[in-house]
Amino acid sequence: MEPKLRMGMIGGGRDAFMGHVHRMAARLDGKCELVCGAFSSTRQQSLKSGEDILGSAGRVYGSYRDMLRKEARLPEEDRMQFVSIVTPNNMHYPVAMAALDAGFHVVCETPMTVSLEEALNLRRKVEQTGLVFCLLQCYTAYPMVQEARSLAAGGKLGTLRRVVAEFPSGWLASRLETSGQKQAAWRTDPRRIGKAGCMADLGSHAHYLAHFVTGERVAEVCADLATFVNGRPLEDDGSVLLRFDSGARGVLWASQVAIGEENTLSLRVYGTEGSVVWTHRDPNTLIVHWGDRATEMRRTGTPHVGAYAADATRLADGRPEGYIEAFANIYRNFCMALRRVLDGDPVPDAQCGFPTVSAGVADIAFVEAVVRSAGAGEKWIPVEPAAEG
Amino acid sequence: MEPKLRMGMIGGGRDAFMGHVHRMAARLDGKCELVCGAFSSTRQQSLKSGEDILGSAGRVYGSYRDMLRKEARLPEEDRMQFVSIVTPNNMHYPVAMAALDAGFHVVCETPMTVSLEEALNLRRKVEQTGLVFCLLQCYTAYPMVQEARSLAAGGKLGTLRRVVAEFPSGWLASRLETSGQKQAAWRTDPRRIGKAGCMADLGSHAHYLAHFVTGERVAEVCADLATFVNGRPLEDDGSVLLRFDSGARGVLWASQVAIGEENTLSLRVYGTEGSVVWTHRDPNTLIVHWGDRATEMRRTGTPHVGAYAADATRLADGRPEGYIEAFANIYRNFCMALRRVLDGDPVPDAQCGFPTVSAGVADIAFVEAVVRSAGAGEKWIPVEPAAEG
Amino acid sequence: MEPKLRMGMIGGGRDAFMGHVHRMAARLDGKCELVCGAFSSTRQQSLKSGEDILGSAGRVYGSYRDMLRKEARLPEEDRMQFVSIVTPNNMHYPVAMAALDAGFHVVCETPMTVSLEEALNLRRKVEQTGLVFCLLQCYTAYPMVQEARSLAAGGKLGTLRRVVAEFPSGWLASRLETSGQKQAAWRTDPRRIGKAGCMADLGSHAHYLAHFVTGERVAEVCADLATFVNGRPLEDDGSVLLRFDSGARGVLWASQVAIGEENTLSLRVYGTEGSVVWTHRDPNTLIVHWGDRATEMRRTGTPHVGAYAADATRLADGRPEGYIEAFANIYRNFCMALRRVLDGDPVPDAQCGFPTVSAGVADIAFVEAVVRSAGAGEKWIPVEPAAEG
Amino acid sequence: MEPKLRMGMIGGGRDAFMGHVHRMAARLDGKCELVCGAFSSTRQQSLKSGEDILGSAGRVYGSYRDMLRKEARLPEEDRMQFVSIVTPNNMHYPVAMAALDAGFHVVCETPMTVSLEEALNLRRKVEQTGLVFCLLQCYTAYPMVQEARSLAAGGKLGTLRRVVAEFPSGWLASRLETSGQKQAAWRTDPRRIGKAGCMADLGSHAHYLAHFVTGERVAEVCADLATFVNGRPLEDDGSVLLRFDSGARGVLWASQVAIGEENTLSLRVYGTEGSVVWTHRDPNTLIVHWGDRATEMRRTGTPHVGAYAADATRLADGRPEGYIEAFANIYRNFCMALRRVLDGDPVPDAQCGFPTVSAGVADIAFVEAVVRSAGAGEKWIPVEPAAEG
Repeated sequence: MEPKLRMGMIGGGRDAFMGHVHRMAARLDGKCELVCGAFSSTRQQSLKSGEDILGSAGRVYGSYRDMLRKEARLPEEDRMQFVSIVTPNNMHYPVAMAALDAGFHVVCETPMTVSLEEALNLRRKVEQTGLVFCLLQCYTAYPMVQEARSLAAGGKLGTLRRVVAEFPSGWLASRLETSGQKQAAWRTDPRRIGKAGCMADLGSHAHYLAHFVTGERVAEVCADLATFVNGRPLEDDGSVLLRFDSGARGVLWASQVAIGEENTLSLRVYGTEGSVVWTHRDPNTLIVHWGDRATEMRRTGTPHVGAYAADATRLADGRPEGYIEAFANIYRNFCMALRRVLDGDPVPDAQCGFPTVSAGVADIAFVEAVVRSAGAGEKWIPVEPAAEG
Repeated sequence: MEPKLRMGMIGGGRDAFMGHVHRMAARLDGKCELVCGAFSSTRQQSLKSGEDILGSAGRVYGSYRDMLRKEARLPEEDRMQFVSIVTPNNMHYPVAMAALDAGFHVVCETPMTVSLEEALNLRRKVEQTGLVFCLLQCYTAYPMVQEARSLAAGGKLGTLRRVVAEFPSGWLASRLETSGQKQAAWRTDPRRIGKAGCMADLGSHAHYLAHFVTGERVAEVCADLATFVNGRPLEDDGSVLLRFDSGARGVLWASQVAIGEENTLSLRVYGTEGSVVWTHRDPNTLIVHWGDRATEMRRTGTPHVGAYAADATRLADGRPEGYIEAFANIYRNFCMALRRVLDGDPVPDAQCGFPTVSAGVADIAFVEAVVRSAGAGEKWIPVEPAAEG
Repeated sequence: MEPKLRMGMIGGGRDAFMGHVHRMAARLDGKCELVCGAFSSTRQQSLKSGEDILGSAGRVYGSYRDMLRKEARLPEEDRMQFVSIVTPNNMHYPVAMAALDAGFHVVCETPMTVSLEEALNLRRKVEQTGLVFCLLQCYTAYPMVQEARSLAAGGKLGTLRRVVAEFPSGWLASRLETSGQKQAAWRTDPRRIGKAGCMADLGSHAHYLAHFVTGERVAEVCADLATFVNGRPLEDDGSVLLRFDSGARGVLWASQVAIGEENTLSLRVYGTEGSVVWTHRDPNTLIVHWGDRATEMRRTGTPHVGAYAADATRLADGRPEGYIEAFANIYRNFCMALRRVLDGDPVPDAQCGFPTVSAGVADIAFVEAVVRSAGAGEKWIPVEPAAEG
Repeated sequence: MEPKLRMGMIGGGRDAFMGHVHRMAARLDGKCELVCGAFSSTRQQSLKSGEDILGSAGRVYGSYRDMLRKEARLPEEDRMQFVSIVTPNNMHYPVAMAALDAGFHVVCETPMTVSLEEALNLRRKVEQTGLVFCLLQCYTAYPMVQEARSLAAGGKLGTLRRVVAEFPSGWLASRLETSGQKQAAWRTDPRRIGKAGCMADLGSHAHYLAHFVTGERVAEVCADLATFVNGRPLEDDGSVLLRFDSGARGVLWASQVAIGEENTLSLRVYGTEGSVVWTHRDPNTLIVHWGDRATEMRRTGTPHVGAYAADATRLADGRPEGYIEAFANIYRNFCMALRRVLDGDPVPDAQCGFPTVSAGVADIAFVEAVVRSAGAGEKWIPVEPAAEG
C-alpha cells in the first residue's frame, strides 16, 4: 500500500450534505486522507466544523485563503496535496483559481463555475499550471453508465439518433428556502448559484451524462424554463430540446418541483442498431435493446459487461453499489492519476477516469445557452463551442 | 340481455391489424354484432376479406359508398345501426361525412382527420345531424388512466405544474415501408396519413392522454421534428415543448425509430400536492406520489381505486387487463350510449365514457400546430383553440 | 369464416365471476356462440340468469339434466355442440360425466374433480366416448408461458434442477365466506370444493404450470397446510416440497391469506445452462438467464420469441395481452380442434394447444398427495402416477 | 471527532472478497482504523497481504496467535481494540475464542461457528469475558429491512401468518471449486465450511433475516437438501418448511446453483393486517401491502419512514445506498457501542444496532436442525432452543 494522499477541504461543513458525501467517498478506498480544512464561510463556523470533522488530528483554518497560504508554507511531506472544493457554486471559481495559484491540485464540485467566462478562465489556469483538476460529477462513474458509454460512444448502437435525458426531483416543490434549510437557501439564491437554478443544479448533470455516454456535443438548444414556486428568483423546472453536432436530437428535462421524483437522473440513447436505458433508480442495471434480438439486462458485477464497467465495480454480482461507490470511483481514479503525476507522469487527458476541466466548460456552456434560450424569441440558440480555450 | 346493436365496418380488411383489434373488442362484451362491411379500397379485396370475416352471415360490399347507400335502404330492423371506420387516415373524413349524411352513427379510428379544416367540418356535421360520434382512442379507457384523471383533473394533485408525455416505438427504425409491409406503407405516405407522420400516428395519442388526464388544454407548442430514415417523406420522431392554458408546462416525445420501445405510451403529471405516473408497459398500476406521505401503487381490480377506474375494470385484482379490454371499454360505452339514444335519450356530451368529435378536433389542432412549429423560426406557435365550432 | 360452434353453459350465472370470464373469452375470437344454458343450481335462478345472459336469443333450462336431455333431442343443426362447465368444483364431475354420456364435447373448469377416483373415471369416460375434453386452465396459454415451456421442456436450459412455483392471493385473509360473498362461500366449503381449499383452488394451478413448463412429473411431496382464519374448515395456505421424477427439486407455495398478493402466480425454473422467470404480475415478459451471457427479457409480440409464443399472441408488441386473451386462447384452440374433429379428424392428443383430461388427472393426483402429506408423520408421500388410466 | 478505534483483522487477505468488503466498510465512517493483521493461514501469505493492505503504516503478523499475543503486550494506547475475523468458517470459532481470551472485542463473519456446540461455548465465553461481540450479518442493516422490522415485529401487520425467505445465487452452478477459485474451494469443503454448504453460506442469512424482521423464532423445520453438481460433498441447494413458535408458517429456499440469481436475498412477511416485501435486488424500496388501503412503496431517505430506517440511512432520497453502506452500518454501530463500553457503559444487549452472539447461536441451531432434517425420515425436526446458554 502506498501512503495516502493528503487532502484538504474547502466548504462542506458539518451540516453540509455534500461535504459529508465527499468525506465518505474519499475514505472508502483509503487512497487519501483528510488532513486540513476551511469548512465554512465564517471563521467561527469553520473552526467548529473542523473540530467535529477532523478532531485534533487535523489542521483547521478560518478561511480558505488562510488555508491555502499556510498549507503552502508547510514542509512538503506534511502539506496537503490536493484540495476538494465543496462550497456553494459561486465560490467554486475563486477558490479553485486560488488553489491552483497556490500550487494545489483540485477536486471541484459541480457546476464548476457560475459563468462561461469563469469556466474558460479556469481552464486556461489549469492548462497553465499543469495541475490535475477533477470535476466531481459522480454519475458517470456508475458501472452501468460506463457500460452504456462503451456501447453508445463505442459505436455498438450504430449511428445515434435520439437522446432523452432527465433529472427530476421534488425537494423544492414548496418554498423550503424560507424554512431555514441551508441547502435550499443557497441553491435558490442567484448570488450563490448563479444565473440558473434547476438547470445549474440538475440540468447540467443530465447534460453531462448525455454528452459522456454518446460522446457527442450539443450544438443548439431550445429551452422553456419555469419558476413554479412563488417568490423564487430562479427557475425550478425546465425542458430543453437538443440538437447534437452529429444530427442526433434530444430532449432534456430537469425539475426541482416534481413531487415523488428522487434525484431520478436517467438517460435513454437510441441508435440505428440498438438502444440503452439507464436510470439512477436502478443503477446497477443497463437495459440494452437491439434491433435484431431480444433485449438484454446487463448487470453490475456480472461477467457479461465490458472492461470499463468492470473497472468501476467493487463487489460481486448482486451486491448493490450506490451513490457513495460511484462518488468514490472518482476519488479513487483521481488519486491514482495524481499519484502517477506526482511520480513524474504527464497530466492525464480527458480519458482518465474522471471528468476534467473540459467537462466543466461544456456544462457551463450548455447552461448558459439554456438560460439565453429561455429568454429568447428565436427558436434555436447555439451552445458556445468553447473550443478556443 | 338486450339485442345486439348492428355494426358495419369500413376498412379493416383481413390483413389489417387494427380491423382485427376492432372486431375482437366489439365482440368482447356482446353488445354489438358485425353485420356488414366494405373492408378494402378495391371491390375484389373487400369481397375476399368479407368472406373471411363475415362468412355467409353478413353483407359484404364492394365500396363504402355502396354499403352506405344499400344499408340505408334496408328495413330498419335489419339495417346496420353504426359504422366503424378503420381505413387509412386520409379516408376517415370522407367516409365519416358520408356515413353521417346517410344517417349512421359513427365509431372512427384516430387521428380523426388529416386537417383541422376537415375536423371542424366533421364536428359541424355531427352537431347538425345529432348522431353519436365516437373517436376510438383506447388509451384513456384503461382503468388506471381513469384513476389518474380522477386525481389530476379532479384536483387531488393540487395545481398542476408539469406534464411529461411520451409515445416511443421502434417499429419504423428501418425502412420497413419498402418491404411490402402495408401498415408501414400507408403510415409513412403523406397522401394517406396527412401532413404529419409520427406525430399523427403516435404524438396525437400522447397529446390526448395528457389532455384527458389533466383536463387542461395545450395553448402553445414548440416542436422539433426529425426524419431519421432516409427517403421517408414525413417525420419519424419528434419532441415538443408544451405550454398549457393553465400555466402548466409539458414536454412530449413520440418516435417510430426508438429501437426497443414497444408502443410505450406513458404519462407523468406533477402538481403542487402530488403526482401520478402511468405507463402502458405496466398498465394496471398507477404510481401516486404525495408530498406528505409514502408513495402509493394503485392497482386495477382492487378496492382501493375510485368509481371511474372500477367502471373500466372487468376482472378481479391480479388478472391483467390489456389493450383489447381498453379498446372494448370504448365499444361498450359507445354501445350503451347509443342504446340510450335509440331509446330517446339526448346525445351524450363529452363526459360519456368515450372520446367524442371534440377530442378529435383538439388532437388535430395540436398536430397542425406541431407541424407549423417545426418549420417555424419563432419559438412558440399557438394551438388553434377551435372553439368557434 | 366458418360458422360458429354452438356452445352451452352449465353454471356461471349472472353473479358468478368465472361464468362472465368464460363468456367474454368465448366471444373474443368469434369461433363459438353461446346458444343455451343452465346457469344455476335452482330452476328459478337459472331462468333469471338466462334472461340476462342469453335474452330471447337462447335456450334457457332449469337444470343441467334438463338441458342435456332436451338439447340432445334437438335437430343436429341447432343442437349445442359442446358444453362449458362452470359450476362449483363438486359438480364438475357429475355434470361432465352426464354431458359426455349425452354425447357432448366438454370444456371444464379447474380443478377437474374433487377426487382422484372421479378424475380417473372421467378420463376413462373421455377415452370411451371419443369426445373432446378441454380443461380450462388458462395460465399455460399466456405467450410467455409457452416461451418458457419451449426453453425448459425443450431442453434449452439444460438439465432442470430447481423449480419454484407460487400462487399467493389475499382475498380470503379475513372471513369473507360469512359475509354473503358467494364465491368465498363455496370455495371454503368442503362439500363443494372437496378435500382441499387453497390447494385445490390455487395450488393445483401452480402445480400444472410447473408440470407444463418443465415437462416433468412431481413424484413425491412433503406438505405443510395451514388454516389461518378461525372457523374455516379447509386450509387457506400451504407450502409443499417437491421431488420430480427427473431428480429436480421444487417448492410450491399457495395462499389465500397473503394480503397484497393479487393472484400472483409465478414460476421459476433453473437448469444447468440457464433459467426462466415468469410472473402473472408482468405476464408479457419472460426473464431468461443464461450461464454464459447476459440476461434476456423476451416479450410478447416481438420477433424474438418462438413459434408457440407467437401462436398464442394476438397483438403487436407493446399492446398488453392479459387474462381474457389467455383464457380465449384455450377456447380458440379447443374450437379449432373440435372443428377438425367434427370434420372427421381424430381426437387430438395432449399437445393440442389446450389442457386435456390427463392434465386434470395429474392435478388431482397432486392435490390428493398434498392433502395426504399434510396429515402424515412421514416426510415424503408419493404422487399417484395414475398411469393405468 | 473522537479518535478512531484501533482494529485488527484476521483472515481477509488481499485476494479475499470479504476482507476487502470489511476494510471498505470499516473505513467508510472513519470510526475505526486498521492497525494490524494476520491476513492468511500461512506466514508468507499473511506478510505479503499485509504489505499490500497496511503498507508500512501497520503491524503485520504471520499468524493470528502471534498477533493476539503480541498485540496484547503493546501499550494500551497503541494496542488494537477489537479484531475482525474474516477467515473461512471453520476458523471463526478458535480465533474468536482466542481473541476473547486475549481480552479483545470481536467482530466476526457469519456463520459464527460450524457447530451448535461451538456456538454455545462461544456465547458462554462472551458472557464470561464481558467483551463486545458483533456478528457481521449485514443484511439487517439495510434501511428498508429496519423499516420492515418496525412494521412486522412492531405489530403493525397484525398477527404474523406466513413468511417466505429466499437466498438464491448461481455462482456455484458449475464446478468452480476445481478451477482454482479460492472462495469456491473453501465454501464447498466440509473441513472449512462445516456440515452444511449452501445452508451455512446463504440459508443462515435468510433465516436470520426472517427472525430479525418478524421477531419470532423458528421452532421446527422440514428440509430437503440437494447436491446438484457432481462431486461436491455438501448441498448446493435446499428448501425448508418452517414452523414458528407463534404458529406462523414459513418456507425458505437457498441455492448456489440458481443461474441468473445474484445473491437475491428476499423476504416476504404476511400478517392479519398487512404484509411487507423486501428484496436485495431493490434494497431501498419496501413494498407495504395493507388489507384496507392501497399498497405503499416506502423508500430509503424519504421522510415517510420510521426512526430505525432513518438511523440506518446516510444519504438523501434517491441516492442509492448499497451493500457497503449496510455493512458499514454494522461497523459504525459496533464502534459506537464499543466506544461507550470503553467509556464505562455496560455491554449492550441484543437491541444495540448489530447482531450479537445470540444471533449467531440462533443461526447455527437452525442450520443444524436443517441438516438433521435432511437426513431424517420423520417430517418435523425441532430447532434447539439453545436458551440455556
